[in-house]
This record gives sequence, C-alpha cells and structure tokens, in this order.
Amino acid sequence: MGETIRFGDTAWLGERIDGLAARSDRDGESDRGVTRLLYTDSWKEAQHYLAETMKEAGLAVRWDKVGNLIGRLEGRDPQAPVVLTGSHVDTVRHGGHLDGAYGILGGIAALKKLKESRGTPERPLEVVSFCEEEGSRFPIAYWGSGNMTGSLDWRGGGDLKDEEGTSLAAAMEASGFGREDQPDSRRYDLGAFVELHIEQGVLLERMAKQIGIVEGIVGQRRYSVTLRGEANHAGTTPMNMRTDAMAGAAEMIVRLELLAARKASLVATTGRMQVAPNIPNVIPGTVEFTLDIRHDNEGTLSWFCDYLIQEYEDIANRRGLGMTITPWLATTPVPMSLELTEQAERVCAGIGLSNRRMFSGAGHDAQLFAPVCPTAMIFVPSRGGISHSPDEYTSPEQLADGVSVLASLLYELAYEETAS
Amino acid sequence: MGETIRFGDTAWLGERIDGLAARSDRDGESDRGVTRLLYTDSWKEAQHYLAETMKEAGLAVRWDKVGNLIGRLEGRDPQAPVVLTGSHVDTVRHGGHLDGAYGILGGIAALKKLKESRGTPERPLEVVSFCEEEGSRFPIAYWGSGNMTGSLDWRGGGDLKDEEGTSLAAAMEASGFGREDQPDSRRYDLGAFVELHIEQGVLLERMAKQIGIVEGIVGQRRYSVTLRGEANHAGTTPMNMRTDAMAGAAEMIVRLELLAARKASLVATTGRMQVAPNIPNVIPGTVEFTLDIRHDNEGTLSWFCDYLIQEYEDIANRRGLGMTITPWLATTPVPMSLELTEQAERVCAGIGLSNRRMFSGAGHDAQLFAPVCPTAMIFVPSRGGISHSPDEYTSPEQLADGVSVLASLLYELAYEETAS
Repeated sequence: MGETIRFGDTAWLGERIDGLAARSDRDGESDRGVTRLLYTDSWKEAQHYLAETMKEAGLAVRWDKVGNLIGRLEGRDPQAPVVLTGSHVDTVRHGGHLDGAYGILGGIAALKKLKESRGTPERPLEVVSFCEEEGSRFPIAYWGSGNMTGSLDWRGGGDLKDEEGTSLAAAMEASGFGREDQPDSRRYDLGAFVELHIEQGVLLERMAKQIGIVEGIVGQRRYSVTLRGEANHAGTTPMNMRTDAMAGAAEMIVRLELLAARKASLVATTGRMQVAPNIPNVIPGTVEFTLDIRHDNEGTLSWFCDYLIQEYEDIANRRGLGMTITPWLATTPVPMSLELTEQAERVCAGIGLSNRRMFSGAGHDAQLFAPVCPTAMIFVPSRGGISHSPDEYTSPEQLADGVSVLASLLYELAYEETAS
Repeated sequence: MGETIRFGDTAWLGERIDGLAARSDRDGESDRGVTRLLYTDSWKEAQHYLAETMKEAGLAVRWDKVGNLIGRLEGRDPQAPVVLTGSHVDTVRHGGHLDGAYGILGGIAALKKLKESRGTPERPLEVVSFCEEEGSRFPIAYWGSGNMTGSLDWRGGGDLKDEEGTSLAAAMEASGFGREDQPDSRRYDLGAFVELHIEQGVLLERMAKQIGIVEGIVGQRRYSVTLRGEANHAGTTPMNMRTDAMAGAAEMIVRLELLAARKASLVATTGRMQVAPNIPNVIPGTVEFTLDIRHDNEGTLSWFCDYLIQEYEDIANRRGLGMTITPWLATTPVPMSLELTEQAERVCAGIGLSNRRMFSGAGHDAQLFAPVCPTAMIFVPSRGGISHSPDEYTSPEQLADGVSVLASLLYELAYEETAS
C-alpha cells in the first residue's frame, strides 16, 4: 500500500486555472465563456502559458509534431515505461474553464507536489496538454491523443476543413507544427495513463460523493433519421389523409424516451431537428432528427439500437412515411484498467475521500489510451452537472481533492517498487 | 329556376391561365413555380395582362387606390347593387398557376360568356383581381379584399416591412398606387360576391365530386409554444435527471394529433419547430413549435384549444418544463350565404354536375365579403390536394365546369328578375 499525498495549495491551482481561462477568444465584453479552438492564436497563447507553468513546476518541456505539449519529471531509470497524466487544452465554443484545463493543471500541480515532497521518481513522470479533443474546429476529435496512441495519423487530416474553409494541415503548419523535423507524436514508451477530469454530470453531486472512479467509458451510436411525408395545406387536409413527417418524428422521439427509461444506465437523446418547409400552416414534408444513444455494455447498446430501428420501421410503415436511418458514429464501450481502478479506490480510502465507481457518459482522451496501456480516470463533482458552459463550476476544495488522489496514484505508479 | 350556362371554351381559358402564369419571378430556368408578390414588377405585368384580358372580354376596366383591378359589365340599372366575382392575383413563393388566378380568369370567362350569349344584365356585373391575399411579401393578408370591405385601411400598412426592409406604403407608392386622387377601395354598392377557387384539398377528388359548394370557412387559432428545460450533456445526464424540452415537445405533438383525430373535421398541425442549441449530443434546452388549429364551429374550436392548453400545462408541469403559449392568430368560422349555397346546388343539378357542401379549411377573400353582402364560394377539385406548389393541377374540363357553375349563378343574380 502506498503513502497518501495531500494537495492543499488551492491558491496556486486556482490562479493558474484563471490564467489559462484568460487565454481565450471573446465575443465582446460580456462573453464569459472560454473558446480555444485548435491552432488558433488563443490556443497558442494557452499552450505557451502551460509550457511556462510546467517549467515553473520544475518539468522539462517539449512539443510533439501535432502540438501536444509535454512536461517531464525524469526518473532514476529514464528507460522505464512512462507514467503519463494530462488532458486537452482545446475547448468547445463558449465552454467552461475546467473541461480539459483541470486535467492538465491538476497534473502539473501533482507533479510539482511530488517533485517538491518526494524528489526524483523511479520511473519518468509526464504531464501532457493534448492539442485537441473536442472536435470544435475541424470535424475530427481526439487529434492529440489519437496521434499519440496511433489511432490517428498527423498526415491524415489534410482534407478536413473548418467553417472558414481552412484545412487542418494548413492550420497546423501555420501554427508551427506538422513539420518533418519535429518529434513524432506516436508513443511506444507508455507504462500507464491517468486522466483527471470534472464529471460533467450530476451523479457525484446527487450521491454526495467526493470522487468518481471511472470503470469505463460508454459506447456510443449516433444516427440521423430522415422522414419523408407529404407537405400539404394545414387547413384543407383532413387528419386521416395526412402523411405528416412531424407527427411521425414526435411519435418516434416519445418512443425513444420510453424505451430508454426502461433500460438501466442507457441514455438516449434527440438533440437536433430540421423541419421542411418549416412553415406554421404547412404540414411538414420532411423532418430530420438525430439520435445519440449510449450504454456501458456493447451487447445491450447494439440490441437496443436494433430494436429501436425495428420500432421506427413499424411507425414509418403504419404512417406511410419514407424513412432513411444513417449511422454516423459507433464506438464500443471502453473499460478502464481494473487494477488501476481498485488502486484508485484504495488511494481514496487512504486519504478519506468518499467515492464511487461510475461509467463516463462522455468521451475522453483516456479511451484512446485504454487499448495501449493501463489507464484510469478520476472525476470530481460538477455543480449541477453543468459543462460546456461558462457556468461550469467545481469548488477549490473539490479540485484539490482530485489532485490529491491523482498525486497519490502517480506516486504509487512512479515512485514505489513494482510488485514484480 | 334559372337557365344554365355551359362554358366550354377550354382553349381560351387555358391560354390565359398560361399567359398569367408567365408573369412571374423565376429563380433560374428550372423554376416552374409562380412567384408574384404584391407591387413587384411581375405583379404589375400580371395586372396589366389581366386588364387587357378584361378589355378583350368587353369589360370596362378601372383600378382602385390599393391596386385592385376591376372589369365591369354595365347593367340596365347602373345604380343596382353590383354582383361581384373574382379572386387574388398574388401568389406564395414558388406557388401554382391556379390559386387565385383561376378565380379571376374564370370570372372574366364567365362575364365574357354572359355578355356574348345573354347581352346586357339587369344589374352591373363585375370581376375583380384583388391585389393581394396570401401575405407572402408583407406580414399582412387580404390587403385587396380587406380594403374593399373596410376591415383594412390603405393608410394603415405603412409600418409593415418586407424582408428587404421596404415598407408596404413605399412599395404601394412605387408601383403607382396609394395616391389621394385615386378612387377609394372601400365599396358600399355590393349586392353579392361569388368566388371561384381550386379546393387545395383532397376531399372532392376522394369523394369523386365535380363541384364543392362552400358552406363556410373554418375558424383558425395559431399559437407559438415555447418550452424551456435544461440543456445538458447527452452522455452524462441520466434519463431520470433530465428536463428535456425536445421530449416534452414530442409528447405534446403526439397529444395534439391524438386529440384532433377524435374530433370530426378538426385539423391540427405543428408546421414549424426551432430547437436550441440544436446539437446532436446536447439535450435541447429550448424548443419552440407552432400550433395551427381549425374547425368550422367556433364553440368546438374554442373548447378544443382550451382543453389542449390544459393538457399541455399538465405535461409541462409533470416534466418540470417552463412553458409559454403565445396566441398570434384567431379567426372565427365564417358562414357563407345559405340562400346562395342552395342556389348554387340547384345550378349544379341543372347542369348535371355532382357536388357536395363542404367547409373551406383555407382562408379566402370570400370570408371578408360574407359580413358585407351575400357571399358564395365554388370549388373545383385539386389533383392530390396539392396547392401552393408548381404541381398544382386541375384538368381543363374541371376548370370549365367551375366556370359553368359560376356563370349560371351570376346569370341568376344579375340577369333574372328579383323574386321581390
């Protein structure tokens, strides 16, 4: 059993979270949100701010080919597998100050605390600021962790364009990355990855737990459903002579909610809808809506989606609606390392923090590392479950608790003798 | 009992319907629709084309202050109340060639036929091309018939603006109308109004009837319903912790359809929906949708809307959604003249045309005249019920049938000795 490390310097962490949040694009004075899209000026300012913060913490700083920023605390055995922590520096548009940022700055804080209190680790300890995770600028996500773990390739993003028509390759080059002479992002030296993150949900708050230990990240399916009926006059078409795409969509969305509520821990959402012609006195001829369905078990997720689509076919047939269902995202659930999960629970018990295992309903960089090396995720509560919003909030004490758990776990992984 | 007039010159009518449809704005070569918005160049060309057609038919042509075009066949008693027919020259964007146009050209055809075959009427006979009915350019409808019947005033449209910011007053002036020296639109000399129109619904086609005789025009209620929930993460918010504005809207739209189907001849439509933030992986925080509800009985219509709103309040309360329901249109059902309706039925029987009484689910110029003078409406079938579309279609023979009924009814009203 390892020693516990208690992190208490809430002022140091709070100042740096504010400092990083200040590196943001703003839509005028009243914009409280953080907007930091990949390879933009505010993104560059943020990464350089983090590089300075890493140096201040006594870490050796380097960059990789796609712009991931890495701070290293060298181990007694520099060849030993690296113990890595970190998260992403980019944000959604008008996002919060903690999503991603907390995992990087909490990681730097943990390494600083370990270096100051415990000196040189046995194995190298690193903290990474991934260049991108959200997919907010280009239609691709996990650009940083994907390139590091080999599921994405830095040469492969060339055709992807942002809203202004700038390609990912051009944006990368303009910000000084993507050069042949820069170190490859792909890593083969990883021993473990631990990501610290805000929950972005209400579970810990509602259950009054201080720490969430992620068992796994849910699998996701996303679909676009297009219904084609007849756009007719809302006044002259009797109810029994209609082929109303909106009424069909409404029945399908009600069915989605009903079926999802019956299945424990499954979530299902229609977030987007487009109606044509979208005129009050015309029966909608075409309605397109999205499905976002997530569950922690691949079999259940797959069965649910198949069953739902059958039900939708019944509804469409009964109503005489044409229907096209297009899948556009499918990920399987990703389990975290059971060994690291149990280790994190012991760490929480040692510090005296209440905790619970949980699945992450959101995607995270950690899911890219799970197939590559033992991976764990630590959550702290999010007030009201609010995220991707300027109203994102976790108290300084809760943020410090997360860093204590992270530092203690990293201590066990990097400083202690291995069991073997 | 009157004589029956049979109109058979389908070529004359067809050529002029095509001629009028050619006076249209076009979005490129492939645009088959008719777009003729109030006071635009294509509108002016259309009215002048109709003026020439009226002259060709032997009618005396004049214009009124708002741009209504009138063709008159003088009566032996020029002071007798005028028997008026006609419809509107304007269209929706990308509309069809018959909506409005048929009522004007069918009216001219009827007067031409009467003049040629029966000579001078006892009472003046007029056909009008109303400048506007659809509300497609400015946020006001029935600008022509409203000014003629006194429910609208030509000075009152000044603040209304089109999408380009041009005011109704400025557009009217630019097209040569709205001058002090032009004859007032308001009429006090009307003895009867008869409007010929395509059905814009499927009832006559499904019932295999040649003529529809309108008993009345339905009353309408329109509302905007705004639901406010919580925009949360689609992955991290369990189903039982959501306040999902989309799921609430879907339940309300399903309820609308269910309740409407139980009430004979009531129609209810959600034609428009706006979702915010409208992102696939975010639970919608706000959904706004429209209700368009119509029925022929004011008591039923009013009761239905009250009941529906109560149900919606229950749904919103159960789901914890904030709700605002804003009414923005309320018209009461308008009965047509029972005497003229029965007269039209006798005319159909005399000619040998199958017919049925029906309510109009769409609004028409006739509803403005019903409170002012005895008013009737004659429908001919619409193929597939399609209207406000380039696919609008009624066969030449069906169009001629409608003109025969109109001419026969106008003959009784304008040529025969009055019963008194």
